[in-house]
Amino acid sequence: MRKILVIGSGKSASYLIKYLLDKSQSEALHVIVGDINIHNAKKLIGNHENAQAITLDVFDKSSRQKAIENADIIVSMLPARFHIDVAKDCITYGKNMVTASYVSEDMQKLDKAAKEKGLIFMNEIGVDPGIDHMSAMQVIDSIRDKGGKMILFESFTGGLVAPESDNNLWNYKFTWNPRNVVVAGQGGAAKFLQEGTYKYIPYNRLFRRTEFLEVDGYGRFEAYANRDSLKYQSVYGLDAIKTLYRGTMRRVGFSRAWNMFVQLGMTDDSYTIDDSENMSYRDFINAFLPYSPTDSVELKFRHALKVDQDDIVWDKLEELDIFNHQKMVELKKATPAQILQKILMDSWTLAEDDKDMIVMYHKFGYELHGEMHQIDATMVTLGEDQTYTAMAKTVGLPVAIATLAILNEKIKTPGVQIPITKEVYKPILKELEDFGVVFNEKEVPYLGYNPLNA
Amino acid sequence: MRKILVIGSGKSASYLIKYLLDKSQSEALHVIVGDINIHNAKKLIGNHENAQAITLDVFDKSSRQKAIENADIIVSMLPARFHIDVAKDCITYGKNMVTASYVSEDMQKLDKAAKEKGLIFMNEIGVDPGIDHMSAMQVIDSIRDKGGKMILFESFTGGLVAPESDNNLWNYKFTWNPRNVVVAGQGGAAKFLQEGTYKYIPYNRLFRRTEFLEVDGYGRFEAYANRDSLKYQSVYGLDAIKTLYRGTMRRVGFSRAWNMFVQLGMTDDSYTIDDSENMSYRDFINAFLPYSPTDSVELKFRHALKVDQDDIVWDKLEELDIFNHQKMVELKKATPAQILQKILMDSWTLAEDDKDMIVMYHKFGYELHGEMHQIDATMVTLGEDQTYTAMAKTVGLPVAIATLAILNEKIKTPGVQIPITKEVYKPILKELEDFGVVFNEKEVPYLGYNPLNA
Repeated sequence: MRKILVIGSGKSASYLIKYLLDKSQSEALHVIVGDINIHNAKKLIGNHENAQAITLDVFDKSSRQKAIENADIIVSMLPARFHIDVAKDCITYGKNMVTASYVSEDMQKLDKAAKEKGLIFMNEIGVDPGIDHMSAMQVIDSIRDKGGKMILFESFTGGLVAPESDNNLWNYKFTWNPRNVVVAGQGGAAKFLQEGTYKYIPYNRLFRRTEFLEVDGYGRFEAYANRDSLKYQSVYGLDAIKTLYRGTMRRVGFSRAWNMFVQLGMTDDSYTIDDSENMSYRDFINAFLPYSPTDSVELKFRHALKVDQDDIVWDKLEELDIFNHQKMVELKKATPAQILQKILMDSWTLAEDDKDMIVMYHKFGYELHGEMHQIDATMVTLGEDQTYTAMAKTVGLPVAIATLAILNEKIKTPGVQIPITKEVYKPILKELEDFGVVFNEKEVPYLGYNPLNA
Repeated sequence: MRKILVIGSGKSASYLIKYLLDKSQSEALHVIVGDINIHNAKKLIGNHENAQAITLDVFDKSSRQKAIENADIIVSMLPARFHIDVAKDCITYGKNMVTASYVSEDMQKLDKAAKEKGLIFMNEIGVDPGIDHMSAMQVIDSIRDKGGKMILFESFTGGLVAPESDNNLWNYKFTWNPRNVVVAGQGGAAKFLQEGTYKYIPYNRLFRRTEFLEVDGYGRFEAYANRDSLKYQSVYGLDAIKTLYRGTMRRVGFSRAWNMFVQLGMTDDSYTIDDSENMSYRDFINAFLPYSPTDSVELKFRHALKVDQDDIVWDKLEELDIFNHQKMVELKKATPAQILQKILMDSWTLAEDDKDMIVMYHKFGYELHGEMHQIDATMVTLGEDQTYTAMAKTVGLPVAIATLAILNEKIKTPGVQIPITKEVYKPILKELEDFGVVFNEKEVPYLGYNPLNA
């Protein structure tokens, strides 16, 4: 039996562990799931004969090292900042490693040591990052293979609520870490390339510079720009590209409404509100509006943001019950972002039988034999329930498939890496199709940015 | 002769040195001006018999200590971060010290040592901070002395161009460090108290939440909130106050126009623009607007910020020539804020014969015998020329007067301090009047925030 150690049995581990256990007989796998809370680990493995749950505190060096030494390959599903100790142990004990997280600077520094020992440290092999890398590189490579020259690449991902569970005015629920949603876009201007020109969008404009995307069978979405669209420009071999844009997808109208919170400063996470504990939701809103002995919080809000009487964004606010003077914040020394998150969680937490959805949209513009072409590729994955979510599926399955492919020596190139080579993405994308993670590619006219072309 | 060492002979040293030299005969003063650039120092002392210019590199420990040991009192006009080495030497050699800068944490730590040695370390004794502290505390103390209870304190200062030199559409020129103007308000929400409620304004709303102020003989001004209006709440003894607000004054209309730069992200100092060196002013503006093969930068700008065809803010932009495609940025790896500063300096640099202006406005609301009262106090100081500016006068004179008062033992209380005690502010405000720095106080009806009271 080949022993696989999975460290961390949180939200995204369900499909990962199910895949490995389903293959455990035919592939001779023994799956050890380590978590600081063994209850989580036990729940995911049930009483499967080829699985074992262990209590594993990643900060307890000796038990961590013992568990790593005892396995043939290590999958770390811990939060990204905890990977590095595991990775160093993997160097020490000569083990391959797989994570779904961004390559940290510390991780990148292990590249030389990993190569010297012939070890594969596969990272960014979840959904975003992960499936986005693989599906993009597959199309980009095929365009290059036929002699095309890339001129535009745009890529969008959204973690949303499935249509059947989509029953609020924001068309949004928290399907992942709510905090990341509340502070999304903060910390600097969004930067991208349009027709050869660098463009910058400050945070306070980010949610008003959206663009629309149509996905067959799922209707219209909108997208706002990610912080750094150029991060993978060189890695993807797109140094000469004219347009490069990465974004986050929401249902149409979300961003315009969200922008109200941004404008008033309610997403700020850099300072704490005085006496936040004893504030009502209404007091919280009022802290961002001028004092008045006579005017209502509602009218001050409408006036500050110029919200017309018949504007649909107002219904979105009321649905969140943010003007309630009896619901209390109850958080001590909380930042505006923390308070807003609490208010949103009242409304946007998935219900028992709610399902989530992952949607991805790539646009590839290229020149071939002097003509302009465009391929649009879309992928939609729906969750099954609150354990087997679309997020867990699209994060966990690529991790699981890669882990087995490394064990079976289908993936052989050593070093700290991300899944952008044919060796890696071909078998993984192929197998993902069996699980319904399929990209729908179609040729569309290349319109560029000239409205007269439309 | 009592020896006064003035370290630093920059912009704000002119009046300071003139005052000391004018008194040098009657008060038996010898003034030593030390600067890393002795030319500056020599220019300010001329060939006065009681003055001496020396080359002084504050980082050269032995010459710094020698100069400090040789003097009876030290005035540091260096940038704030350089005071601390001087202050430590003053402890060592038992010298009193005066600065116009904010008390740093490191400076505050010297309080005990200063008191043990009976030394006076007087700080924040320029204009803002300085004259604002003194003039506010004088009125606050007088209200308290007659049994009044403070309920409102608002305080505003502006460094502006004098009316006779006010000849651009922004009614503004750089009279001090331009960089501070460009990045003003960044780094966190502005916080203040209104009628007992904490209020917060995010940077992107700061320049749209202004209020108006009328100064007799000088017309109307506007003010936007400072970062932390509550900084001196306890120091001034205002812990029970209902309204506490500090702001920066501009001429009416400045903030609404400035807000355009804020909204587009052109004041951001946290990242560099790619290839900034080879951009025209027009390219710079265009980097914050969406790509279009057909639409002009002007129309995209108007559309993005909803600027009507007949809006006066447009003329303000055109006056700055920001749409010029031939004027080049020429700065390598520059931040948006650095580029904007350069563009503004083309238009807002004081001309040879331009004069500056310092304006200050305090509002004191209080309750006395069950009745509400308000005192408004205003001060306007005009510059004489580009050496004897209003800024140099209002920063340098309080420093100079305090220095002599310490030498003459009129100010006696030791320790690291700011000028908020009667011992300090009374003689200084009195003498400032002889130099035309006069507060015009008047009783006005206390209106509070209820529009029906107006």
